[in-house]
Amino acid sequence: MEQADLKSAIERLRARTPLVHNITNFVVMNTTANALLALGASPAMVHAVEEAAEFVPLAQALVINIGTLSAHWVEAMEPAAETAHARGIPWILDPVAAGATAYRTETARRLIDRKPSVIRGNASEIMSLAGEVGSARGVDSTRGSDAARDAAGRLARSSGAVVAVTGAVDYVTDGERMTGLANGDPMLARVTGTGCMATALIGAFLGAGLDPFDATTAGLATIGIAAEAAIVGANGPGSFQVALIDALYRIDDAALAAGVHWA
Amino acid sequence: MEQADLKSAIERLRARTPLVHNITNFVVMNTTANALLALGASPAMVHAVEEAAEFVPLAQALVINIGTLSAHWVEAMEPAAETAHARGIPWILDPVAAGATAYRTETARRLIDRKPSVIRGNASEIMSLAGEVGSARGVDSTRGSDAARDAAGRLARSSGAVVAVTGAVDYVTDGERMTGLANGDPMLARVTGTGCMATALIGAFLGAGLDPFDATTAGLATIGIAAEAAIVGANGPGSFQVALIDALYRIDDAALAAGVHWA
Amino acid sequence: MEQADLKSAIERLRARTPLVHNITNFVVMNTTANALLALGASPAMVHAVEEAAEFVPLAQALVINIGTLSAHWVEAMEPAAETAHARGIPWILDPVAAGATAYRTETARRLIDRKPSVIRGNASEIMSLAGEVGSARGVDSTRGSDAARDAAGRLARSSGAVVAVTGAVDYVTDGERMTGLANGDPMLARVTGTGCMATALIGAFLGAGLDPFDATTAGLATIGIAAEAAIVGANGPGSFQVALIDALYRIDDAALAAGVHWA
Repeated sequence: MEQADLKSAIERLRARTPLVHNITNFVVMNTTANALLALGASPAMVHAVEEAAEFVPLAQALVINIGTLSAHWVEAMEPAAETAHARGIPWILDPVAAGATAYRTETARRLIDRKPSVIRGNASEIMSLAGEVGSARGVDSTRGSDAARDAAGRLARSSGAVVAVTGAVDYVTDGERMTGLANGDPMLARVTGTGCMATALIGAFLGAGLDPFDATTAGLATIGIAAEAAIVGANGPGSFQVALIDALYRIDDAALAAGVHWA
Repeated sequence: MEQADLKSAIERLRARTPLVHNITNFVVMNTTANALLALGASPAMVHAVEEAAEFVPLAQALVINIGTLSAHWVEAMEPAAETAHARGIPWILDPVAAGATAYRTETARRLIDRKPSVIRGNASEIMSLAGEVGSARGVDSTRGSDAARDAAGRLARSSGAVVAVTGAVDYVTDGERMTGLANGDPMLARVTGTGCMATALIGAFLGAGLDPFDATTAGLATIGIAAEAAIVGANGPGSFQVALIDALYRIDDAALAAGVHWA
Repeated sequence: MEQADLKSAIERLRARTPLVHNITNFVVMNTTANALLALGASPAMVHAVEEAAEFVPLAQALVINIGTLSAHWVEAMEPAAETAHARGIPWILDPVAAGATAYRTETARRLIDRKPSVIRGNASEIMSLAGEVGSARGVDSTRGSDAARDAAGRLARSSGAVVAVTGAVDYVTDGERMTGLANGDPMLARVTGTGCMATALIGAFLGAGLDPFDATTAGLATIGIAAEAAIVGANGPGSFQVALIDALYRIDDAALAAGVHWA
């Protein structure tokens, strides 16, 4: 994706203001909604089993994130995913901490059976979903993203989804093509939920009509470029998080000039 | 409401530090609590069916917001609303995304039967609760607040509540009187939960002992004036949100000088 | 604890990056996770009954906070606490608003039976758990921390936990020793969840291997010193909260020079 393509993708997103339906975790609901609003999408957080599947067709994309899952939430995630797949609404899965407990791994697998368009995780999560054991430690990855490249390819081929494994370098694959992006800043790892935020931004690009591979690349490039703008003048993770939202809002101004760094 | 009246309302609120009981949504719990603390109220978030109704009489006002509703929460909202009404404790309803799903519309209607003192929503929500269909799109309104003035009046007369419909201009009506306020900034729409924050601030003024009409006007004027102070120097929605909390805390200093803009 | 000891405790924490398992409330999940990341720990928020007890042995410390409790959450808190105690993993209880409703007081008592290493609360909460009635008002204390010194000692002796009662002065006791710390800033009381944040930071020092008394002193000294750095240049509680996270991240630079103020 060239700088001109990313700029055009962002313009398209802002013109469409896609409604992005999120069934996501408690930790990131506020910051995810603000990131989506800053970039130009319209977020909605709707998770009750009484209405989640009914809400899906109103949206242009669905984000499912298992960060703070529990039984009632899973009951809503599954029919929401099925409705999205049946209606041709793209959806993305964030399998937070898959591999850390049996409940997470099994829930993520059941959701993958509902055919997500994209799966985004860290190395530990993607490796665990591709059948490799012993790489998770809580919600943070113990492995660099390089170590999960093969696992990402296998998971993409078995699931039919575009798979992104994020870290110092972000890799995107559909099981045949593999793209690497090296934008971002280490401070992203010191703010909670920036991975979840990347997932939501990919959802926004899916909702803007990009195909899964391009939406994933655009979402990861966008947060990476915004992070590079946000770190300038930040005094720590608090001010960085504030500046990151500002940078997503102003990304058309200066930040895009830095461009996408291919790995 | 004149500038002097608003100043006196804020002073009264700060002297009383009303305990405001919130049964609200996951997205805005943190920012709502911080807005209430910044203005001078004492927030509590208590939603379990085991204790919500028991907690109500400890508070000076109750805020019920259906933003991320589910069955267990609705089970607590109803007895809490009934207790508030029975004990003469004022309560305000925020019918987030009413009209978007049947579950939301029905839940909001059942809560309105429990006699809120105030209902605050955007145009789509108020129109849908007044019986007009087809105006909702997720949680954002598809219509300007002007379009919902008649609906607000009808809903006020049928419910007995003061009804506020917020947007570029905020309208407040008890079914006979209608007041318009034109404070605020478009950036409010780029930060999640600023409508919910307005609802909570109205709750704080209810808790300070203002009547529902004046409390609603005071709450909307306060967040609007704070937004006008916060936009100065903001680089985007991230820094604006931080400055908005600061402005609520410092509203006695400079921001009130700008005064209430009548529409 | 001398300045050199605190510096060494923070260095130890950063070297170990303890995984801190939080079963905490919705209001503070984001800010608690960010405070832990800023200081150098690795937070995880895991509360489902299906996995909470399984997750405990992966962590170096467990934080249980009843701020927005409900039945399903309590079902997970109890086995998680039991697992922590059985495995020798230190755990800390934050009994938010104990005394305000019967449900909270009883839940806190049942959790105390599961042998927390540390209990941290405000004066009202600690006095209520020590058997004194009538001191709670919502989630804020009606009493200064001085009034709860005797109650803290009694609760420490009856529970076997180190007990901290926080306020203008923070007191830490194991039932025999009593230490007072006078760091901090009144603005901490205008930001929601700073007490919960203190609890989580104590959890991080427990996870770094400090004994309960030293971990509690280190956690309270750390947030107090960070607050003193954060208030410089803050325009209100919004910018103070952002600066507080930055200060936790940068505490090795300048803030430690101010040192711990013994009461």
